Amino acid sequence: MESSSAITLSKLPYIYPAIPSTNKKTTFWPAGKQRNSQLSTRLHCNKMFVPGFGEASPEAKAAQNLHNFFTFVAVKIVAAQLESYNPEAYVELMDFVAKHPLDDGDKFCASMFRESSRHKNLALRIMEVRSSYSQNDFEWNNMKRLAFKMVTESNTRLMRDYVSETSRPETEK
Amino acid sequence: MESSSAITLSKLPYIYPAIPSTNKKTTFWPAGKQRNSQLSTRLHCNKMFVPGFGEASPEAKAAQNLHNFFTFVAVKIVAAQLESYNPEAYVELMDFVAKHPLDDGDKFCASMFRESSRHKNLALRIMEVRSSYSQNDFEWNNMKRLAFKMVTESNTRLMRDYVSETSRPETEK
Repeated sequence: MESSSAITLSKLPYIYPAIPSTNKKTTFWPAGKQRNSQLSTRLHCNKMFVPGFGEASPEAKAAQNLHNFFTFVAVKIVAAQLESYNPEAYVELMDFVAKHPLDDGDKFCASMFRESSRHKNLALRIMEVRSSYSQNDFEWNNMKRLAFKMVTESNTRLMRDYVSETSRPETEK
Repeated sequence: MESSSAITLSKLPYIYPAIPSTNKKTTFWPAGKQRNSQLSTRLHCNKMFVPGFGEASPEAKAAQNLHNFFTFVAVKIVAAQLESYNPEAYVELMDFVAKHPLDDGDKFCASMFRESSRHKNLALRIMEVRSSYSQNDFEWNNMKRLAFKMVTESNTRLMRDYVSETSRPETEK
């Protein structure tokens, strides 16, 4: 019971797409080189060019990823709500989660809709919760702040670790 | 050359942790039931309780995920920059990417640091770019807007599809 109730998160693969190699000849930002006139007409802003997302953008991919994450969070919220006041529905939900991957939130909900009428209600509840959670409960600014902090701290730590590793032999003399 | 140059994005697993089953007895939000006094003292806000993140928060997990995404984007930006003006470094970077998974951005950079002095410079460049990209180029509000849109549109689509599926036999009569 203990182990079966855990939603296996290893089922959540990262969903950024494989890079189509066709974009190899598209524009790029030749750092350290003066841009020629052709490039300057094609690049309309100072942003770094990110290849490989096709017609989508990094923002769209990150949003898609968060969308699936919200479904996952909604499943956990609903499971926690059901666990005590409706153990039968909780077991049904957990059985369904064990059999269906949560990597694609929409696919998961679509399958749940078609499982049975009870599952349909569960799916509706999950969809309602993911909407409410993303709109009201998820702290967007907090996530942004934490991501900035992680990048800065990780960069500092990586450089410090490398310096301390490479300078150790000299200091130990 | 075409195929080897593509950064295989399937290497990027989603990194939300497995849920420890020890939190099964923690507080939850009994929807549709009146909260008792014990619960009301433990729940200090109206937010939905999300179990299973241990000491971290959903926001922290999402930020960690974005942090790895920024490393991945930085690798793509640097690769696009190198491809034309420094083909040797480009090949070196692609060889390294082919051998090392990009699912953990910091681990990837740490390995690159220790590979060779040329790789060290590449790693420094990637770290610089991921910092700059997250601070200046990534459109946070756009991502938020897109995520909202996806949740709303997906919910509508899922329900519409289900209704059209189940009502088809009647309309076809």
